[in-house]
Amino acid sequence: MSAHGTEPLLLRALRREPTPRPPVWLMRQAGRYLPEYQALRKKAGGFLAMAQDPALAAEITLQPVRRFGVDAAILFSDILLPLEAMGMALRFEEGRGPVFERPLRAQADIDALEPVDPAETMPYVGEALRLTRAGLSDETALLGFCGAPFTLASYAVEGGGSANHAHLRELMYRRTDQFERLMGNLAVMVGRHLRYQIECGAQAVVLFDTWAGQLTLEDYRRYALPWTLRALEPVAGLAPRIAFVRGGDHLLDELVGIGVEGVALDWRTDIARAFERHGDRVALQGNLDPAALLAPPEEVTRRTRALLDRVAGRPGHILSLGHGVMKETDPQSVAAFVAVAKQAGS
Amino acid sequence: MSAHGTEPLLLRALRREPTPRPPVWLMRQAGRYLPEYQALRKKAGGFLAMAQDPALAAEITLQPVRRFGVDAAILFSDILLPLEAMGMALRFEEGRGPVFERPLRAQADIDALEPVDPAETMPYVGEALRLTRAGLSDETALLGFCGAPFTLASYAVEGGGSANHAHLRELMYRRTDQFERLMGNLAVMVGRHLRYQIECGAQAVVLFDTWAGQLTLEDYRRYALPWTLRALEPVAGLAPRIAFVRGGDHLLDELVGIGVEGVALDWRTDIARAFERHGDRVALQGNLDPAALLAPPEEVTRRTRALLDRVAGRPGHILSLGHGVMKETDPQSVAAFVAVAKQAGS
Repeated sequence: MSAHGTEPLLLRALRREPTPRPPVWLMRQAGRYLPEYQALRKKAGGFLAMAQDPALAAEITLQPVRRFGVDAAILFSDILLPLEAMGMALRFEEGRGPVFERPLRAQADIDALEPVDPAETMPYVGEALRLTRAGLSDETALLGFCGAPFTLASYAVEGGGSANHAHLRELMYRRTDQFERLMGNLAVMVGRHLRYQIECGAQAVVLFDTWAGQLTLEDYRRYALPWTLRALEPVAGLAPRIAFVRGGDHLLDELVGIGVEGVALDWRTDIARAFERHGDRVALQGNLDPAALLAPPEEVTRRTRALLDRVAGRPGHILSLGHGVMKETDPQSVAAFVAVAKQAGS
Repeated sequence: MSAHGTEPLLLRALRREPTPRPPVWLMRQAGRYLPEYQALRKKAGGFLAMAQDPALAAEITLQPVRRFGVDAAILFSDILLPLEAMGMALRFEEGRGPVFERPLRAQADIDALEPVDPAETMPYVGEALRLTRAGLSDETALLGFCGAPFTLASYAVEGGGSANHAHLRELMYRRTDQFERLMGNLAVMVGRHLRYQIECGAQAVVLFDTWAGQLTLEDYRRYALPWTLRALEPVAGLAPRIAFVRGGDHLLDELVGIGVEGVALDWRTDIARAFERHGDRVALQGNLDPAALLAPPEEVTRRTRALLDRVAGRPGHILSLGHGVMKETDPQSVAAFVAVAKQAGS
């Protein structure tokens, strides 16, 4: 054990310090692919009820830590809960995903959506973080997260998932003042939520931008990034921040320059090239294709080793997927993935 | 008028010859955003019935040529019709898109899917192409198209659109021999369909790969590209071929090297950089963001001019979108887009 004592590997990697092996965790590592989650879910009711019950959320958060020995726990929650806290009625439909009953389109609705205090409106998050921390060893990092303002706006305006975000684009391009008012309020809320999670024990935070990868670089700079920056600013220096844009390969040069400590790479980005270009500026997380976990465990092992070979032990690497674990995934494939990191450097 | 006489600008651009202005057309330029299409649709019934009626399909194909004066007509049809011709029952559901009643998953079903003769099973395509040609001036190119084998396999195996193609990935990684048998048969069918369209008057063909952009470069090379090559081979030298991969920015270096005459760029690719790297090898088509057509016409004009400025008149540019026209698009914005190309160079 080094002079760092029991400090989590993940935090050292986020400072781009050399670590004996890469820390490993997986986006959406707690959830439907795990039998122990399914067992709880049968008793507990729907997703939202579970995420808003601190004891259940903490238990679910700890499940993959116990099973796989991953180096970080990420709170079992959802990127859309801050919108619910702001007053938007939300439900999760089987096979369809999140649905907002009343999408945010009329100016009056946009004007009425105001940032709120997470400690008052989402106390279950803080309590779940405290309970999770109590169940973790000192070597395991606890992560908080939030959706980025652009992604929150996408869901709020479309009312759920959308192939082409036509309503959001119409708002962006034709009612730009209303779009900017919405984004400003979302950025304040996201910043508060990140700060609240850090105050309740999160040692690093991840900002997920699921939909900004749909934008050209020009539009990303104009319509998404300014509010990402505003959301991240209130927690600068409080805890390291990891930014993720799904399908964001074409935005990567921009993203690594915004001042975050880590950038999570989509699975389609060439990680060796990303390290060559940007490894001296930010830690880089990723980036096995989550769908590759549907391959047999021995193929998962081969691909994960190949990924680590390409990174070649550069400091600042956090082994993870390029997006979330799919519900069809065999837990044995996740175990094979984690094992490669655990064996590296030994 | 040059020595080329009335040869379509589009064909000259595909040979990377200088043209007085860039040719312009739009993916999915015929369809739901046009009032004249909606008027026909009210009388004619569903999408599939229209696409399989030669006179109607030809009329719909000609609508955007008449309204906008685009430089190419692309047959009103669907990438999935070859699968229907091979015996897979297909319907289009409002709000959900294409649905195959019986997705291709069992080995017996995969084995039973065999290539067929397009002239026998899809005669409406050939007839529609002949009728369209009769309605076009010599200056306007007629385009045929087909879905790439990987994209056809995606729809056939998933049974429709899918967020993560879990069934297809399982087939790829765990039943690779069955996946390859399926892809081999699809490649034969696609090659025949492209050839049939050329025989019936198509002067160039577009191969649409809607889903291969989900793959890493490694998986694209292993699981998609070999069958794209097989599908394109039977028409090499017969007519120029344009390849498109949606979300394929990370695959572009590979795609420009496969021997096609043109590559259509996704809207997120930097077109100036693509010309710098690849403009001496292939014609490049694109690549305005289709969602940018939701902006007011004056903003569409500004963005289209900026795009042409970035291309800087390099030969081999075909002005188009980076994906299909959205159904929410105002035809006036399409007119503004086309007008910029028409005014260029004058």
